[in-house]
Amino acid sequence: MIATIYYPDTAQLKKLLLRPSGNNTAVMSDVNTIIRNVKEQGDKALLQYNRQFDAYTSSAIEVTQDEWRKGADNIPDDLKKAIEIAIGNIETFHFSQKEETKFITTTDGVSCWRKSVGIERVGIYIPGGSAPLFSSLLMLAVPAKIAGCKDIVMCTPPGTTGVINSAILYAALRTGVKRVFKIGGAQAIAAMAYGTETILKVYKIFGPGNQYVTAAKMLVQADGVAIDLPAGPSELAVLADETCVPAFVAADLLSQAEHGPDSQVLLLTNSEEVIQKVKSELEDQIKCLPRKEIAKAALVNSKAILIKNIDEGIHIINEYAPEHLIIATRNTDELAEHIVNTGSVFLGNYTPESAGDYASGANHTLPTNGYAKAYSGVSLDSFVKKITFQKITPMGIGNLGNTIEQMAIAEGLQGHARAVTVRTKNLKQ
Amino acid sequence: MIATIYYPDTAQLKKLLLRPSGNNTAVMSDVNTIIRNVKEQGDKALLQYNRQFDAYTSSAIEVTQDEWRKGADNIPDDLKKAIEIAIGNIETFHFSQKEETKFITTTDGVSCWRKSVGIERVGIYIPGGSAPLFSSLLMLAVPAKIAGCKDIVMCTPPGTTGVINSAILYAALRTGVKRVFKIGGAQAIAAMAYGTETILKVYKIFGPGNQYVTAAKMLVQADGVAIDLPAGPSELAVLADETCVPAFVAADLLSQAEHGPDSQVLLLTNSEEVIQKVKSELEDQIKCLPRKEIAKAALVNSKAILIKNIDEGIHIINEYAPEHLIIATRNTDELAEHIVNTGSVFLGNYTPESAGDYASGANHTLPTNGYAKAYSGVSLDSFVKKITFQKITPMGIGNLGNTIEQMAIAEGLQGHARAVTVRTKNLKQ
Repeated sequence: MIATIYYPDTAQLKKLLLRPSGNNTAVMSDVNTIIRNVKEQGDKALLQYNRQFDAYTSSAIEVTQDEWRKGADNIPDDLKKAIEIAIGNIETFHFSQKEETKFITTTDGVSCWRKSVGIERVGIYIPGGSAPLFSSLLMLAVPAKIAGCKDIVMCTPPGTTGVINSAILYAALRTGVKRVFKIGGAQAIAAMAYGTETILKVYKIFGPGNQYVTAAKMLVQADGVAIDLPAGPSELAVLADETCVPAFVAADLLSQAEHGPDSQVLLLTNSEEVIQKVKSELEDQIKCLPRKEIAKAALVNSKAILIKNIDEGIHIINEYAPEHLIIATRNTDELAEHIVNTGSVFLGNYTPESAGDYASGANHTLPTNGYAKAYSGVSLDSFVKKITFQKITPMGIGNLGNTIEQMAIAEGLQGHARAVTVRTKNLKQ
Repeated sequence: MIATIYYPDTAQLKKLLLRPSGNNTAVMSDVNTIIRNVKEQGDKALLQYNRQFDAYTSSAIEVTQDEWRKGADNIPDDLKKAIEIAIGNIETFHFSQKEETKFITTTDGVSCWRKSVGIERVGIYIPGGSAPLFSSLLMLAVPAKIAGCKDIVMCTPPGTTGVINSAILYAALRTGVKRVFKIGGAQAIAAMAYGTETILKVYKIFGPGNQYVTAAKMLVQADGVAIDLPAGPSELAVLADETCVPAFVAADLLSQAEHGPDSQVLLLTNSEEVIQKVKSELEDQIKCLPRKEIAKAALVNSKAILIKNIDEGIHIINEYAPEHLIIATRNTDELAEHIVNTGSVFLGNYTPESAGDYASGANHTLPTNGYAKAYSGVSLDSFVKKITFQKITPMGIGNLGNTIEQMAIAEGLQGHARAVTVRTKNLKQ
């Protein structure tokens, strides 16, 4: 079910590691229309799309305090406790990402510093469908709150009934989400990007979604609204040697494969025995999975690659830039030093990727599709702007003035030089 | 030459602070064609565009070592010294932005950390034209080098002669730029985004440019290539009370206005006298400027607004989110605490904005057009990815396993739960 490739050469590898490129011209055109309609008609368009796409006919598009309370009451205690532990860990790790303001003197009398300020209004999209992704809400709303974002709003599809999943409502309540709207798809992204009578315009939009949501996020980004990350199908690469536990590796590959038929999983190992054992474990373990059909489809696109040595594996990883990387080898920490392109790394035999999906504390919103070559995953940074400040004393402008004037004149910008001269002249009077 | 508005109400303000919205549909279509041609024909397309747009007919598109050396030799010593001081200050401030890796234990046996890794390949675009912006090159290449970016490449238009400005070449040499190509406009962005026979494909593209360059950056971004920031005309707001020095304020407004006819300048003050004096200074000072026609055009779009009090000014600033903000009032530091939306702040009477443009050490690549509500200016962060790591011990997965399983099952992702169970079961054996 998973293809095995033996010692591929560079050309083969290049082909093997290509991501499927989606053609979404048709989607783009539909989404453009949706965005235009939401911009022009506001709530009216949202109600119409709720009817059209979700068969939800009510005009009640905001979750009420009462629904919110009921939802929260519906959560089993065990799940509530689990969510609390996850929130605690996510808080701990993201709180550690706070940056202290450092005041730097670059020249005598010239100080520079920068200060992190929470983005005032952020929007979070949480998809509906088969898996109610309250974990994604935790990964976005917890750092938003730590960052000091004032207005955190959320949209999620109403479904036919307008009843929002209880765990999602509980997570929203616990993480400081202010308002939850029953709007799905591209129309939700448009509503948060431009605002409607009911929905607050936000400055940055976060969260996963289908190809309509993704297209809408790209389009509003091109119009100046910030987004978290470009999106693509989820991915996991496992780098393993003979010290790995094949049953664990297979379970990890399956956990990734069950995300969707377009998920990508990749096993890189220098041990043929590991490949055989992992394949056999995959056959066994997949039988127990409720989402086995999805996992099977994903495995068809996936590869087990026998490599010459672990160094070659590191090289391939850095070329591929997977969203998630498990390193199940000897000397994991030493190898990890050489990884430069990936979203998040899971070290050793007892660190399943699902730990990071839910509760280790690290963020699970990560760059897919090779974007890890330039992008970081979501972190506290994603919810702040870092404003720079500079303060120059009369002595400082005396010290630095000539430098500025020289450079400004060389760039042909005399007005820039004069803004200095008018001050230094004044000093000498 | 600059319109004065007395005590505007909220509706008036909203209108006053609107940015001109550019319609660039025609540009987009042209740029799409350019990008497609560069993708398909590589260097051949670049040579053709050099002929077409710059009347540069040579096929020599890379700056040679010899040209580089000659350029550097051409720089007057004073300018060389000024550039060195600027580099030193930019280095000092950006070096202070390095983040130390903190190892965080979120649960006993569960550690998370993140590590900053330089983006391996970055591209810098430096426009040609009337002002040779070597300062922009410093602002981009200096932090790129500190971040550990391996390949820093640069494109700049050849002009008809193919002779690149000496200060640009010197700055490139001093800051670790590896290769400089004589390619301008949208074709340069396409070449760096997709690579050609000669030009290295990069992962992130930085730098200012005209509307073609801007359009190309937006288009390659939508295709997954990271860019520094969305672009717009440069802006300065000055918040002043009667303690300001009108001659300095006028010089600062003019330094901004000389950038381009679409530059925006804004004076907010609670003193009518300040407005009168600044206007009179503007009239006087503009006469000395070589770029007075440009500055005049920019001032036509600009405003001096008389406000009720400084608090109202702070409110207006946060609504407008200017790229640059000068605070020339009493208690500048205290007021600065309340600024949440701006790119960079200049405090007090002796801190001209041009100091930040060249040499204070802070970065001058900043969010325009209100983007400061969600975006930060360029900093060391812009040149790194922050990769997260997690490492869990057998005890750690014992402690956290149940939490992960509960959440995974509630999301309907049994495979995720099983990746934990297969491990914790093993612990108990």
